[in-house]
Amino acid sequence: MDKAKAARAAALELALLNDVRKRAALRAMAAALRTNKNKILKANAADVAEAKKLVSAGRMTAPALKRLMVNESKIEEMALGVESVAKLPDPVGRTLGTLEMDRGMILEQVTCPIGVIGAIFESRPDVVPQVSSLCLRSGNAVILKGGSEAQHSNKALAEILAAAAAGVTGVPDGWLQLIETREEVKEVLALDEYIDLLVPRGSNEFVKFIKNNTAIPVLGHADGICHVYIDKNAQKSMALDIALDSKVQYPSVCNAVETLLVHKDIAKKFIPDVVQLYINNGVEVRGCLKTRSLSKGVKPATEADWKTEYLDLIISIKVVDDICDAIDHINKYGSKHTDAIVTKSAAAAKRFFESVDASCVFHNASTRFSDGFRFGKGAEIGISTNKTHARGPVGLEGLVIYNYRLRGSGQIVADYTGPKAKKFTHKRIK
Amino acid sequence: MDKAKAARAAALELALLNDVRKRAALRAMAAALRTNKNKILKANAADVAEAKKLVSAGRMTAPALKRLMVNESKIEEMALGVESVAKLPDPVGRTLGTLEMDRGMILEQVTCPIGVIGAIFESRPDVVPQVSSLCLRSGNAVILKGGSEAQHSNKALAEILAAAAAGVTGVPDGWLQLIETREEVKEVLALDEYIDLLVPRGSNEFVKFIKNNTAIPVLGHADGICHVYIDKNAQKSMALDIALDSKVQYPSVCNAVETLLVHKDIAKKFIPDVVQLYINNGVEVRGCLKTRSLSKGVKPATEADWKTEYLDLIISIKVVDDICDAIDHINKYGSKHTDAIVTKSAAAAKRFFESVDASCVFHNASTRFSDGFRFGKGAEIGISTNKTHARGPVGLEGLVIYNYRLRGSGQIVADYTGPKAKKFTHKRIK
Repeated sequence: MDKAKAARAAALELALLNDVRKRAALRAMAAALRTNKNKILKANAADVAEAKKLVSAGRMTAPALKRLMVNESKIEEMALGVESVAKLPDPVGRTLGTLEMDRGMILEQVTCPIGVIGAIFESRPDVVPQVSSLCLRSGNAVILKGGSEAQHSNKALAEILAAAAAGVTGVPDGWLQLIETREEVKEVLALDEYIDLLVPRGSNEFVKFIKNNTAIPVLGHADGICHVYIDKNAQKSMALDIALDSKVQYPSVCNAVETLLVHKDIAKKFIPDVVQLYINNGVEVRGCLKTRSLSKGVKPATEADWKTEYLDLIISIKVVDDICDAIDHINKYGSKHTDAIVTKSAAAAKRFFESVDASCVFHNASTRFSDGFRFGKGAEIGISTNKTHARGPVGLEGLVIYNYRLRGSGQIVADYTGPKAKKFTHKRIK
Repeated sequence: MDKAKAARAAALELALLNDVRKRAALRAMAAALRTNKNKILKANAADVAEAKKLVSAGRMTAPALKRLMVNESKIEEMALGVESVAKLPDPVGRTLGTLEMDRGMILEQVTCPIGVIGAIFESRPDVVPQVSSLCLRSGNAVILKGGSEAQHSNKALAEILAAAAAGVTGVPDGWLQLIETREEVKEVLALDEYIDLLVPRGSNEFVKFIKNNTAIPVLGHADGICHVYIDKNAQKSMALDIALDSKVQYPSVCNAVETLLVHKDIAKKFIPDVVQLYINNGVEVRGCLKTRSLSKGVKPATEADWKTEYLDLIISIKVVDDICDAIDHINKYGSKHTDAIVTKSAAAAKRFFESVDASCVFHNASTRFSDGFRFGKGAEIGISTNKTHARGPVGLEGLVIYNYRLRGSGQIVADYTGPKAKKFTHKRIK
C-alpha cells in the first residue's frame, strides 16, 4: 500500500533527524495548531453536524459526541501537549551499555526508533496531535487511522501538523500518514510488512478486535480489571480512602478498581463501613455471600462480576481467607493491569509485589496512580498489559528499541576459534 | 490444554524462586545429565535407528541425522552448558529505576520473568537442556515441542531435567512441559492464552511458518541476509580478511555474509583480488555486470541473488556508486540481522551505524561476531530481528520483563487533582 510504503521510507530518514530538529518540528506543529485553529474548528463543525444526526438517530452515544467535539481551549490543550513532548529528552541515541569485546573492539548498545507506528483510534481527534508528536519525538513514522465520525477533524489536524513539520530541514515527507475513512481497519491490520507496532486507542472490544486480527505487535490493553486487597492488618481509614479513590475518582478509566478483596479477619470491622461509603458516593455494590451477610444494600455478585470491567460506579466485593486467596483471585481474574494491597505488614506487601502477575503492583496507594504522567514520564503512549517489550504506563521508552554497534579494527572470527584462539576480554565499560 | 495450564500455574510459583534455589536446581540438572547418560544414549539410539531408515529412504538428510546424534561428549557439553547458565547473574529482581513520586511514595521498576516460554525446534536434542536451563534461570516455565525424529531423546532429557529440578525445594511441578510428537505444532501456536513468548529454533522456512501462524510474540529470525560493504577508503588487506571470514568461517549460519557491496572507486583495485580469494577458498562468486567486467570466474547475479540467504559457500557481489547506494541496498534487501562496513572514515562509519536498519551494525569487523557468547552474554536464547522487545543476540535479558512497584503511605489521586492539587516531586533516585 502506497501510504505504508511512504511511511516506511520516511522512517529510515526520520531515524537520522537530530534532537534540535525534532524539537523545532514539534514547536512548529504546536504553533500551527494555534494559527490554524479556525480551520480545525470548521472541520470539526462538519463532523459534529454529522454526529448530531447520528445521536438523534440513536446510532451514536452522547459521550461519543462529547469526545468528538473540539473547541478553542481543546486546541490550546493540543498545542500545549505537543510542546510538552518537545521538552522531553530525546529517547534516541542513548547508549544502554558499552562492552570491550577485545582490545580495539568495542560493542555499544544504542537506542533507535522502532520504525513505523500504526495508531488506530475511535472518535477522539486529539489523538492525532498526541500520537504524532510522540512518534516524531522518538523518530518514528506514523500511520493514523481514525474513526469515520472524526474524518474532517482528523484530516485537518494531520494536514496542519505534517505541513508544519515539513518546514523544518530534514523532516522527510510522508512521516505522518492519515488513512482515510473509505479504507478499512482490516487493511491496516494486514500491513505487518510495513508497520512495526500498533497502538490502538478505544474501547475494550475495539482493542480486543485489533489484538485478535493482526500479526503486528500491539502495545496496549483490552481489559483493566484492577483489584484492591484489604489485608487483615490494614489501617482502616487508609483502606477506606484507597477503596473509595480507586473506584470513584474517575470510574470510567482502565486503572479504576473493579473488585475489592477483603481479608476475612477484618471483614466484620471493614465491610459495613466501606459498603456505606460506596453507597453514599453513588456506587452500586455487589458482593459475595459473606459480604452480603455483613452489610445491607449489597446485590449478589456472580462469577461474571469477577470477570467484568464495569467502567462505571459499580464495585464487587469478595471476602477472602488470606493473602494467598487474594493473590490467586487476582491472578485468575485480573487483567495484569494494576492491583493494590493495603496493609501495615511489609512482609505481606513484599509477597504481594512478588506474587501478583501485573504490570503495576501498589502498596498503600490508589490504583488510579497507574498513569504515565503520574509515573513521571511526561507523556503516555498507552498502558500495556503485554508480557513483552513494554509494560504498564508506557512513555517514549516504549517507542524505541536498540541496536548493537560494533567498532572493530579488522577483527575476524577465525582468530577467536580453534586451539590458538584469542580470548575475548569482555570488559564492561558502561 | 492441560500441559499449558500446568505450565502457567507453575510460572506463578517459579517467579518466586530465589537465586540460590535456581542455581541449585540448575546444578542438579547438570549432574543428572551426567548420571543418566546411559538412559540418554539409549533413548537417542532408538531415534538414530529410526532416522537411519529415513536417511536410507531419502526422507532425512545426512546433516539432520548428524544433528540428532548424541554421544558422551555431547552429554558432557550439555551439562557444562547448564552449569554455565547457573553461573550467570540472576536476571530477575533487578531494579531498573526508582522514582520518588512524592514524599512517602516510591515507584520502583523491577525485572520479573515473562511467564511461559514456548520453544519449538527441529531435530537437535541439545535444545532441551539449553532452553530449559535458560528458562529456569530467568524464572520462566517452558513448553518444549521438538521434532518427532528426536522424540525418545527429548523425552528422556526432559524427564531427567524435570526430576532433578524437582528435588530442589520451591521448584514447582510442571514448570518443564514436553509436548509429545502426536500433538501438532499448530496446537502450540494457538496457545496464546498460556504462552507469552515463542522461541523457535530451526530453518528459515520453519521460523517463517511459526511467525505467520501465531498470535504469540516470536523471538527469533527467519532470514539472515547479512552484508559487508567495502567503502572507497577501506584498508585493502583488512577488507579482504573481513570479506573472507564473514563468508567462509562458518557459511551455514545466519550471521555469515551473503552479499558483498563494493564502492565503485575501489572496485578496480579490490574486486579482482577478493574474487580470487573467494575462488581459492571454494566460494562460488556471483556478481553484477561491473563485478564481472573486472574479474574472471564470476557468474551473473540476478535480482533473486540479492534476496537469497545461501547458507553455503556462495557469495554475490555488487558494485555501488557510494555509501548511500550501499545503505539503500541493505535496507531494501537485508533482513535486519547484521551488516558491516569496512572503512577508514569515521564519518562513513557513523553514517552507516545510524542509517542501516539492522539489529547489529559493525565497523571493521566480521559479521560472524554477531553472537550471544561473543557479545559477552554467556548464553544465547536466540538472535532476534524483531523491532520490539529484544534485538540482535538475546541472552537472559530477553526472557525477563519488568513491573512497576509503588510503595505508598495511603496516597489517593483525589489529592493530586483539582485547584488545590498536591504536586508530584518526581525525583529520580536511581
